[in-house]
Amino acid sequence: VSTKLPKVGTTVFSVMSRLAQEHRALNLGQGFPDFDPPEPLREAVSRAMAAGCNQYAPGIGLAPLREEIARKTARLYGRTPDPEREITVTSGATEALFCAIAALVRAGDEVIVFDPAYDSYEPAIELAGAQAVHLPLDPPAFGVDWTRVRAAITPRTRMIITNSPHNPSGAVWSAADLEALAETVRDTDIVVLADEVYEHIVYDGALHQSVLRHPELAARSIVISSFGKTYHCTGWKVGYAVAPAALSAEFRKVHQYVTFCTFHPAQAAFAEFLAAAPEHYLGLPAFYQARRDRFRALLAPSRFKLLPVAGGYFQLVDYAAIRDVDDVAFCEWLVREAGVAAIPLTPFYAQAPGTRLIRLCFAKSDATLEAAAERLRRL
Amino acid sequence: VSTKLPKVGTTVFSVMSRLAQEHRALNLGQGFPDFDPPEPLREAVSRAMAAGCNQYAPGIGLAPLREEIARKTARLYGRTPDPEREITVTSGATEALFCAIAALVRAGDEVIVFDPAYDSYEPAIELAGAQAVHLPLDPPAFGVDWTRVRAAITPRTRMIITNSPHNPSGAVWSAADLEALAETVRDTDIVVLADEVYEHIVYDGALHQSVLRHPELAARSIVISSFGKTYHCTGWKVGYAVAPAALSAEFRKVHQYVTFCTFHPAQAAFAEFLAAAPEHYLGLPAFYQARRDRFRALLAPSRFKLLPVAGGYFQLVDYAAIRDVDDVAFCEWLVREAGVAAIPLTPFYAQAPGTRLIRLCFAKSDATLEAAAERLRRL
Ligand SMILES: CSCCC(=O)C(=O)O
Ligand SMILES: CSCCC(=O)C(=O)O
Repeated sequence: VSTKLPKVGTTVFSVMSRLAQEHRALNLGQGFPDFDPPEPLREAVSRAMAAGCNQYAPGIGLAPLREEIARKTARLYGRTPDPEREITVTSGATEALFCAIAALVRAGDEVIVFDPAYDSYEPAIELAGAQAVHLPLDPPAFGVDWTRVRAAITPRTRMIITNSPHNPSGAVWSAADLEALAETVRDTDIVVLADEVYEHIVYDGALHQSVLRHPELAARSIVISSFGKTYHCTGWKVGYAVAPAALSAEFRKVHQYVTFCTFHPAQAAFAEFLAAAPEHYLGLPAFYQARRDRFRALLAPSRFKLLPVAGGYFQLVDYAAIRDVDDVAFCEWLVREAGVAAIPLTPFYAQAPGTRLIRLCFAKSDATLEAAAERLRRL
Repeated sequence: VSTKLPKVGTTVFSVMSRLAQEHRALNLGQGFPDFDPPEPLREAVSRAMAAGCNQYAPGIGLAPLREEIARKTARLYGRTPDPEREITVTSGATEALFCAIAALVRAGDEVIVFDPAYDSYEPAIELAGAQAVHLPLDPPAFGVDWTRVRAAITPRTRMIITNSPHNPSGAVWSAADLEALAETVRDTDIVVLADEVYEHIVYDGALHQSVLRHPELAARSIVISSFGKTYHCTGWKVGYAVAPAALSAEFRKVHQYVTFCTFHPAQAAFAEFLAAAPEHYLGLPAFYQARRDRFRALLAPSRFKLLPVAGGYFQLVDYAAIRDVDDVAFCEWLVREAGVAAIPLTPFYAQAPGTRLIRLCFAKSDATLEAAAERLRRL
């Protein structure tokens, strides 16, 4: 069988989670919390099943859930998307990213991607017959060089994929980045695909600079978020896309034939929980900042060098002082020898720069973080 | 925004379900039961959430669930797929169909589709840059004309999509059809995409002729099924694909970037329930045959002409004696005037033949079937 995706193997997250299991390691690799979603949310899922929410939900998502998303967006970003025409619930952010690319990118198009980049963007671009144009974000700040972006734009550029807070670096965009993006795409028909799944996890009092705050950008953006990241239930696979009606219409044409709809009982539960407990997401920055600070303090005495983390729940560390091997080899060694699973950065690059950085997820209980840090300090 | 899918609007199932709601009609349109999944299954989902199955499941599906699928396949079709390399759990059969096409069909390829066909096949083919080649199944038997199929094969034919039991007609394939398919694809590299979501719903003592029964076909087929159809929970969106390792590898490359994984608690629940209650699916033919027979008896005095139903949970009826309008107009009239939502056949065709047939779903409670039949008898 010849392959349409010659560069693709099994995603690094699956590979590392499996290695973690085989070696009974502490899993700081794949990004997921080791604690559960709020009990009232789980109970709401059970109640929804008992109440008969077991058949197809509307393909675009349950109306009350779309209304809650609109309310949240209005409250946080000063923009109220129309739930009927501008919000679509998806089977996780991954499905939303895939549908956006499949719906809008054509054979021969170019899509600008900032490396290191989440690994699902490029295969979706390839399946659309298009070309990813990779621009580097350089450590330690992983900021965008807007001059380079402007130079990379061609008549074929169809889309720019942004990701703030950024996975894997934890960098966040400033209002100036939004403005630079707006200037860059002005007078073009480039669509912005904004991967904002860590929208609620921004530290040190900073505001999340959603493209939805910027009317000019919002008018040409598909913004993706994830209930999994926000409500500690990555395995429930509920996400959504916010986009102007014309873009949403194209997005929905694809979505209805990719999954049709999303697990119905969870949609009912999220609608109820968002209405009852908006304070949950408002508390997330403090919740995760405490974890970030604790984890950094625990690792301070180690030989790893810690990079700054402004958002998201990943800590990049430089292991150069410990072993002089590439990051994939280091992660394989780490899971085997130290019993800690991490994620190498190489799979986030089209052309890996050979930095000595790995990613550790700190969305973990105190006990896990302490045990992992103890192992990491021993190296 | 220019569209990649110019022929696609909102799927007819969404349109009719919305009309049903607006007119407070009895909804025999979109195919879903109006009763719930077994209570032990719902309870197993709740238990799985309480037990912490809330983060990402393995992308290919939970191991115990894949093992149960292998066991079921062995028991029913005499073939034991390798759970590790040949079975992939998906977010519904729709996702599985989409991934199979996206993974294996390339720009310029041809895919043979039998019309009337489920509406998701063609958009997936179009997004792959390929061409659907439509062959008719003629009423009332909706059988395949294998001479025509052989004549339609070209060097570009990459895939044949089969669907038995067939939606919307309820026709089922015989062993002779499997043999004819095997002869047709022998000495080609055509892949069979077998949509077998109604595999457990076959009537009058017939056996479901899964392509998995036929070793030669099984070696080149991706077989799709759906827990939603089998366990009365279409809104839970859990399905799966069985395919030889080489095809599964390509399928999984795409699947991991389309949804990554499927709602974790339901996977745990299905694994538990399949192990504990294999008799559930063995009882489905009798369960639905009673509904089919009851519904047909209730409609016998009406002016609708009933077509035969050998499998699945849809009844085609000819309305020519009632109104001389096309099927879309008839369904719009029916939902408004009679308070019954049905599905027209036109959206299942590339070129609708102008038959006077509509589809009624009988996966409904006795009360719903009686009330709907009463309304339909009045016409
Ligand atoms: C879908 S598995 C990857 C989860 C994630 O977002 C990450 O680890 O970066
Ligand atoms: C995904 S909505 C359509 C459900 C179905 O299989 C049908 O009604 O034919």
